[in-house]
Amino acid sequence: MKTRITELFGIEMPVIAGGMVWCSGWRLAAAVSRAGGLGLIGAGSMTAEVLREHIVKCRQAVGELPFGVNMPLMKPDAAILMEVVAQERVPVVFTSAGSPKKWTSWLHERGIKVAHVVASSIFARKCEDAGVDAVVAEGFEAGGHNGREETTTLCLIPAVRRATSLPLIAAGGVATGDAMLAVMALGAEGVQMGTRFALTAESSASEAFKRRCLELNEGDTRLLLRKLSPTRLVRGGFYDAIEQAENRGATGDELLQIIGTGASRRGIFEGDVEQGELEIGQAASLLKGRDIESVEEVMRQLRQEFDCALQKIKNFR
Amino acid sequence: MKTRITELFGIEMPVIAGGMVWCSGWRLAAAVSRAGGLGLIGAGSMTAEVLREHIVKCRQAVGELPFGVNMPLMKPDAAILMEVVAQERVPVVFTSAGSPKKWTSWLHERGIKVAHVVASSIFARKCEDAGVDAVVAEGFEAGGHNGREETTTLCLIPAVRRATSLPLIAAGGVATGDAMLAVMALGAEGVQMGTRFALTAESSASEAFKRRCLELNEGDTRLLLRKLSPTRLVRGGFYDAIEQAENRGATGDELLQIIGTGASRRGIFEGDVEQGELEIGQAASLLKGRDIESVEEVMRQLRQEFDCALQKIKNFR
Repeated sequence: MKTRITELFGIEMPVIAGGMVWCSGWRLAAAVSRAGGLGLIGAGSMTAEVLREHIVKCRQAVGELPFGVNMPLMKPDAAILMEVVAQERVPVVFTSAGSPKKWTSWLHERGIKVAHVVASSIFARKCEDAGVDAVVAEGFEAGGHNGREETTTLCLIPAVRRATSLPLIAAGGVATGDAMLAVMALGAEGVQMGTRFALTAESSASEAFKRRCLELNEGDTRLLLRKLSPTRLVRGGFYDAIEQAENRGATGDELLQIIGTGASRRGIFEGDVEQGELEIGQAASLLKGRDIESVEEVMRQLRQEFDCALQKIKNFR
Repeated sequence: MKTRITELFGIEMPVIAGGMVWCSGWRLAAAVSRAGGLGLIGAGSMTAEVLREHIVKCRQAVGELPFGVNMPLMKPDAAILMEVVAQERVPVVFTSAGSPKKWTSWLHERGIKVAHVVASSIFARKCEDAGVDAVVAEGFEAGGHNGREETTTLCLIPAVRRATSLPLIAAGGVATGDAMLAVMALGAEGVQMGTRFALTAESSASEAFKRRCLELNEGDTRLLLRKLSPTRLVRGGFYDAIEQAENRGATGDELLQIIGTGASRRGIFEGDVEQGELEIGQAASLLKGRDIESVEEVMRQLRQEFDCALQKIKNFR
């Protein structure tokens, strides 16, 4: 399979594993890159020291294969983490939650390829102005932090496709090969998948988190926290406390009190599925009843599902 | 083009025009059926007398071609309207907002084909049990009344595809031929489009409503009224009043007070785009800058876009 995304990153399948907090350590990133995709280490939940360790171990595991780091730009220590990325000669950085202008030139000067994550065509145009190498358009279906416009992937991808000529990666709601084909019909040239990879054996999330997410029904994740930063959460005790507060009209400050500190670490990494914060995409319910699979198995299924859906659609006309 | 949906209804293109309040009179329904799709009259905003008039005029315009009526089952006078549908020998009824068990046998006994609109795979299975001829799965992107699960079309279609073997029509976020191809890659065999047809010349909505909807940006429609019945509305004075009340924690009763009576008639039909209730799908922003087009022109573009997207995707592997 060949698109501008496989060529840009030098990968076999246009599949990127999102760099997710508490899930995307070196094991997951390396497994995805070794299986023909692009694995990302999630710097969002790492200190500089931990990030360096994950980069070194990832490189040991993948050899000459490409891999990357996802960097949320609103992170207070983003500048320190960026130094680590440059020192360790990481080949690719995906930036998010900030302006694409801030780091793109700096990274390019150091020979690092840059993709930026957006949730609207206005920000996609800013990416083009900033000179990024690719844009990730992430729809309402995505887990965790989400765009204010609430535009779904089905409506977002065509909008971004028209707004920019950049290589385009679709994210949000894409957990199968069928969905991969669907977003490529809309103009995407690759996909970034979070949910599917967060629930693999190689993800560093707790087993309790993975098992909980693999039994979700439709409607079991919802977008909340619109008064702060819109976030897709899984139903449970933490979710209920926020929803009840929002229903009675709680302010942003009151919501911050309820969230407290360390909630996503407690939920995702430590496996407190009742009181911790659980972030996963809407597509999780499509994985219901599956086992915790290996990355290799997931990549094999993606290829097969994509080919099968493509065969079917070729007969339509 | 041939799918189980074209065969079921005896149409050329698997495209159904949603039966929308204040938009879907006989002119719109007849134009869609004459252009090779299936036009639906929207009974939701009609009295028995008005519905009969629209059915008679639609039949005069289409001759032997199929057409249908959309019937929201929660309408207090649904039983009276169903009698009109049967007396006038309408060939197809799409039911929504209620149980598919209630009317399916009754309609079948009168030789009428039945499709039912759902927003979850649980309700899709109920459709199969009730013996409907086809199921419409409508995602979060859709305008107006919406499912409680907030499942987007990208996640809903595969879920419903697995849950039932019924002929499957995708709705919500589908306004172009590319999106038609995308949802068919997910397992749909046809599409129901509301937004695109609501804004055609033949739609009975006011010109002011159509012009307002053709200038929307991403994020200009949102789902509100979760404490009553979740509804996708267009930003404006009416929307602002509801959003502000919800942000301060207003109850369902307080929201009903703000909504008042006749709001959608005022907004959509009479064209009070500031104080009236405006309902349109999220895909409206993809139509920004277009003119008010004829149904024939829309159907021509859909064919062309579909073919073009299919050609592109055939080259992926």
